Amino acid sequence: MDFNLDNGIAVLERTPATLRSMLHGLPAAWTEATEGPDTWSPFVVVGHLIHGERTDWIPRAEIILAQGANRQFTPYDRFAQFTESQGKTLAQLLDEFARLRARNLQTLASWQLTDAALSLEGQHPALGAVTLRQLLACWVAHDLGHIVQVARVMAKQYRDAIGPWTAYLSVVK
Amino acid sequence: MDFNLDNGIAVLERTPATLRSMLHGLPAAWTEATEGPDTWSPFVVVGHLIHGERTDWIPRAEIILAQGANRQFTPYDRFAQFTESQGKTLAQLLDEFARLRARNLQTLASWQLTDAALSLEGQHPALGAVTLRQLLACWVAHDLGHIVQVARVMAKQYRDAIGPWTAYLSVVK
Repeated sequence: MDFNLDNGIAVLERTPATLRSMLHGLPAAWTEATEGPDTWSPFVVVGHLIHGERTDWIPRAEIILAQGANRQFTPYDRFAQFTESQGKTLAQLLDEFARLRARNLQTLASWQLTDAALSLEGQHPALGAVTLRQLLACWVAHDLGHIVQVARVMAKQYRDAIGPWTAYLSVVK
Repeated sequence: MDFNLDNGIAVLERTPATLRSMLHGLPAAWTEATEGPDTWSPFVVVGHLIHGERTDWIPRAEIILAQGANRQFTPYDRFAQFTESQGKTLAQLLDEFARLRARNLQTLASWQLTDAALSLEGQHPALGAVTLRQLLACWVAHDLGHIVQVARVMAKQYRDAIGPWTAYLSVVK
């Protein structure tokens, strides 16, 4: 599928409600579960998405749109949430994510991006030249990847509990 | 994690709203997308979950609880939704799933299952003896596996659109 701004936004605007539906009020046995050492719980994932709203997608899009001399993105700190989420409840994080996402989508809409604008490039610190179109598509796929992760982390908690059904449910492995 | 009835129900009762948040009103380019021939779209997945509500989880639990001479489950028709969903909109399917799930969770609660009841066994047509506890855990993991699938199917549509980011986003592969 080619990237289409309206279709991409349709996913981006749904992610906060999706995560709220999945996680709000759920026992900590689920929301703090992981896939093992150095893997992320649903709680950690929501904090990571918040950090992306603050520092990644829109700031990178702004660097591209400015087309300044230095179009190099700041590297994404994949571990910021371990300090930034400290002392917060999951309910607070879900609210914060929803608020930041709504604001960022307003910003995105305000740009009234043309095809030409979507083809402008920035410099990813590791991947090299990327277009605004690719950045926005990545924002969508990144959301979906973390929804996959949250559901998979939870499913794996029942790897033993489902007994012989492990033969059928590849998600628990 | 051991199966715990309250924690399992906490997931089961959230699945309809999770799928509604993800899919309701989303363009068909997403909801009818697949991972290739003979794979399922989000629309097909919701129909499959409806079929499970009608014919699988609660009917199988009833077979176990009855402890009759024949405790063999009816095989689960994994393709029923291709006919049963015909002519229906995704919005109708999401409503139907939510209604059936709510009714089934009322039935489950009405049984006031004890640990002893959860240890009763039925016969899976392929897997042999399984307990009610394993069946209910499987219901939960099955939901989560299909949430994983829906988000993964959608993410894969952007495999090419994200350009060099495919190196980082394993979900699109």
